[in-house]
Amino acid sequence: MTRINPGGTIGIMGGGQLGRMIALAAARLGYHCHIYCPDENSPAFHVAQYKTVADYTDEKALTAFAEAVDVVTYEFENIPSQAVALVAAIKPLHPSVKALEVSQDRLAEKSFLAASGVTTAPYRAFETRDELGEAFAEIGKPSVAKTRRFGYDGKGQFMVKRKSDLDAVMDVTKGAPAILEGFVSFDREISVIVARSASGDVAAFPVGENVHTNHVLDTTTVPATINDMMEAKAKVMATRVANSLEYVGVMAVEMFVTDASGDIVVNEIAPRVHNSGHWTIEGAATSQFEQHVRAICDLPLGRPDALGKAVMKNLLGQEINDFEQYLSDPTAHYHHYGKSEPRKGRKMGHVTWVKPE
Amino acid sequence: MTRINPGGTIGIMGGGQLGRMIALAAARLGYHCHIYCPDENSPAFHVAQYKTVADYTDEKALTAFAEAVDVVTYEFENIPSQAVALVAAIKPLHPSVKALEVSQDRLAEKSFLAASGVTTAPYRAFETRDELGEAFAEIGKPSVAKTRRFGYDGKGQFMVKRKSDLDAVMDVTKGAPAILEGFVSFDREISVIVARSASGDVAAFPVGENVHTNHVLDTTTVPATINDMMEAKAKVMATRVANSLEYVGVMAVEMFVTDASGDIVVNEIAPRVHNSGHWTIEGAATSQFEQHVRAICDLPLGRPDALGKAVMKNLLGQEINDFEQYLSDPTAHYHHYGKSEPRKGRKMGHVTWVKPE
Repeated sequence: MTRINPGGTIGIMGGGQLGRMIALAAARLGYHCHIYCPDENSPAFHVAQYKTVADYTDEKALTAFAEAVDVVTYEFENIPSQAVALVAAIKPLHPSVKALEVSQDRLAEKSFLAASGVTTAPYRAFETRDELGEAFAEIGKPSVAKTRRFGYDGKGQFMVKRKSDLDAVMDVTKGAPAILEGFVSFDREISVIVARSASGDVAAFPVGENVHTNHVLDTTTVPATINDMMEAKAKVMATRVANSLEYVGVMAVEMFVTDASGDIVVNEIAPRVHNSGHWTIEGAATSQFEQHVRAICDLPLGRPDALGKAVMKNLLGQEINDFEQYLSDPTAHYHHYGKSEPRKGRKMGHVTWVKPE
Repeated sequence: MTRINPGGTIGIMGGGQLGRMIALAAARLGYHCHIYCPDENSPAFHVAQYKTVADYTDEKALTAFAEAVDVVTYEFENIPSQAVALVAAIKPLHPSVKALEVSQDRLAEKSFLAASGVTTAPYRAFETRDELGEAFAEIGKPSVAKTRRFGYDGKGQFMVKRKSDLDAVMDVTKGAPAILEGFVSFDREISVIVARSASGDVAAFPVGENVHTNHVLDTTTVPATINDMMEAKAKVMATRVANSLEYVGVMAVEMFVTDASGDIVVNEIAPRVHNSGHWTIEGAATSQFEQHVRAICDLPLGRPDALGKAVMKNLLGQEINDFEQYLSDPTAHYHHYGKSEPRKGRKMGHVTWVKPE
């Protein structure tokens, strides 16, 4: 592992708000940033020194990008793994290609999680209608069918409540590789943002409690309404996952707290900074974005302690224009991602309230 | 006064670390930034969407810059006032040309401060050796001769301890307009960072206590070691100055606490964000940079309260390379301005420690 000192250049694949906030944190530490993104209107371009506007299949552009930087990271997991592998052959890439591949395939993800020693929902792979029937017989109802690849924010998912739903599932998956998961009846959703550096240091932020609306994160609240034991257990699970992947960078581990037993079931992982960690910008001693930069550059990790009670709320679409109320609120911190079109449901910004405990 | 909503474009004249930190704060609120600076290696360019590399005398470039933005500000006071006046004729400019002009001329500054109802050191203008002799007879020793224009960090200043120093003063001022000031014997130097919005709202940050080494700021500590009454008095003085100028933006008012009486004497003003306000980034509810953006865009001002005890230390020259110790320190926040050459004495970054009170 090579340390990348302040003054070095960080390449970031993906130009959305996550890349933008990584670039802002990197700038404070004196790093230069180079954003790679196919969309020339990407908000991360606005705050970075260098940019490449090119497709993820453009090998020439990917090569030039990798050669121009000292270390590469990415801000979303749906980048073609070939693009990432090409870059990784030239410069250090964190998180690894393996971390990306695991997160891109729900079957690989479940198998990996189970092998890491954390609890997941029961699952079974299927492609054909016959295989789905067998999976349903085994998993039972209710269950959830999910395509293995490129699902996000509830897309590519289908709830199975009775046997007669199975045909409709096939209309969604259309024979693509998929899994059927046991539905977890849960009290609350939580997530752990955990950082692991190349030296193997691990730091988990306090657990956040997430509320989703229409499959999109609405709020994250810290501390979560779980007891100390559950808080510790959630952090141990996230740490196991990070160590097991030999992960480098910040990752999010999403979990359900089940209503049956109060147990914790790991739902999925995101090999990147995460929306449920935005509260750390003002609410923690170190933000998830700075922590990610520290981890991938092999600097000492920062202190993850919360500075108070924090609530983060996403601002979707036109909600971004309610800035007057947030800027007038003495405990609120308003964030606007610099996107020009406030389309319905689009993540345009967020607001974080921090109150001393 | 026009409000400039988030999503608008802020023009910043000057591309140093102050412009850079304004741009970083503006980005969080969704503003696009356009930096104007003659030096193409300016660190503010690294984090801004638009840049103009041109001299401050280039009227065509200044005009195009002003036309491309919604509001203009500046990060240092030695910009030619003609350049600023040209821009101000096209777009709203904050702080005003008047604020800039007052701060550029030590005689105008002293006259203005006296008229604002704050205490300053006694002073008298001179150009010739004869006038200097008369000034010295009036002000007495010790006193300090200062050129009226373009002095900073102790440059263009000369201490007068005896009559025989007067000839040496003329070697420094060379007949340029200058002032002779009574030397203030002081216990401590303090500064108030104060924001005033176009609507006339004023918010003063807690008073900082400054230690200079070789005429360059070394540390700022908050709270200053002064009592509540002095703290209040210092803030009132800064508020008077801001109101008297009908100032819009963040300004710094530097003061001496005299050892004779514990009185406060205003030394000088800086019509911009200020090195002695860097502690606010992590140490206050709102940073001076965000506050400046709020003020010039006519948004509500943020809360200026300190979040704990803060110490800010400048990192000069090679000190920037001591990042390991700062990044390993759980209460330290390390800032690197992205400058490539750590020349001796150059402000390369700073570190801020914040400890809960």
